[in-house]
Amino acid sequence: MTYCVAIRLAQGLVFASDTRTNAGVDHVATFRKMRVFEKPGQARMVLLSSGNLATSQSVASLLELSCRHHEPARNLLQVASLYDAAAMVGATLREVVARDADPASTIDFSSHFLLGGQVEGEAMRLFHIYPQGNFIEASRDTPYFQIGEAKYGKPILDRVLDYDTPLAQAIQCALISLDSTMRSNLSVGAPIDLVWLRPDDAAPLAPVRLAEKDPYFSVLRQAWSKGLREVFATLPAPDWPL
Amino acid sequence: MTYCVAIRLAQGLVFASDTRTNAGVDHVATFRKMRVFEKPGQARMVLLSSGNLATSQSVASLLELSCRHHEPARNLLQVASLYDAAAMVGATLREVVARDADPASTIDFSSHFLLGGQVEGEAMRLFHIYPQGNFIEASRDTPYFQIGEAKYGKPILDRVLDYDTPLAQAIQCALISLDSTMRSNLSVGAPIDLVWLRPDDAAPLAPVRLAEKDPYFSVLRQAWSKGLREVFATLPAPDWPL
Repeated sequence: MTYCVAIRLAQGLVFASDTRTNAGVDHVATFRKMRVFEKPGQARMVLLSSGNLATSQSVASLLELSCRHHEPARNLLQVASLYDAAAMVGATLREVVARDADPASTIDFSSHFLLGGQVEGEAMRLFHIYPQGNFIEASRDTPYFQIGEAKYGKPILDRVLDYDTPLAQAIQCALISLDSTMRSNLSVGAPIDLVWLRPDDAAPLAPVRLAEKDPYFSVLRQAWSKGLREVFATLPAPDWPL
Repeated sequence: MTYCVAIRLAQGLVFASDTRTNAGVDHVATFRKMRVFEKPGQARMVLLSSGNLATSQSVASLLELSCRHHEPARNLLQVASLYDAAAMVGATLREVVARDADPASTIDFSSHFLLGGQVEGEAMRLFHIYPQGNFIEASRDTPYFQIGEAKYGKPILDRVLDYDTPLAQAIQCALISLDSTMRSNLSVGAPIDLVWLRPDDAAPLAPVRLAEKDPYFSVLRQAWSKGLREVFATLPAPDWPL
């Protein structure tokens, strides 16, 4: 499986993804599920994927090729709006599934994508593109999207995040959400890819890769575990006779 | 949906379940998913169920009828071991599914059960009975089982529980696991049914029902939420330039 989360805040965007893929428990591998598209001063985007690896890799390869060859029909870096980029991802996904999926097969060829970023002249935006190629956009009320093994890591996002959460705290929250998922589900695993964007920032995107033993990630996980246990120890005891 | 958790500790057994059922979002109802079977001095058992409500209610009704009419073939209270009781639940489940399920239908007739308790002459035991009627038993290494919408509430169990956790803390942990699930998934809802058993205790089982606004449950939820936010605020900040 996979777990990816993307958050849209007043202060910027945060993206985090694991790198484990598996087809059965004896076919486990490491693949990057985060891709970056950028053209300084014009467009900066991050694409996260889950689902069928052949499908999501094909979609990303076709999008990357189109950028490299400056094909306007499918060039994420020549759009006027991030909305158009989301539509391009959706159309490419439909194309790949139509090409590869065998209707007679029980194999699931579907993929989900999260696409977020900023196109010059627009605010930052974040989209979730469904396997059918249609998509929804994050809002103030719902500032994050998840794809893949989303349930384990959802409670911490629901408890901590809102649109006004500072960027550093949203990064911590995304990492703890990943950590909770990795502890409870073997199909999600380190290293973690992490990247954040501030609005109207000219600096190139600088994704960070965190290994299982990364010093900051280790300290964060330990501090969270220890803190949880301490809170637990101070909880009011039930007043029933036990 | 449903969320049920059962925990087997050195100090005893803890069972907690929500009461929401839904067939679509416009058909939501409240049903008890916890049933108690006991014969003082001989056997005490708790049965939790998830899945198809017609199936799980039929299984429970047939088991209750057999106890009432002292039918030895399916009498949970006349077993020599809790293992035999788990096998009875499995056999009754197979019987109901064979009677009701239409192979031509796409409806899912399956149910899961958790059965735990103590039969005189044995230690406390806890079983998870699968839709196929076979079952597994909790151990020191894996002291809890969940059925239904299990993923949201799993991380807190994985972080806090082990076989030597005191009974009061396991109750708190089960309630927080329920709370996390209810916050993230509308198909799981209060009131909560809760019961615990100490080994070799002669007192009758006394299930507690906690409404959404139950004073202890409210205080516990608030203390946990507040504690989490406080831990969050003290986490080490990322040392990357943000």
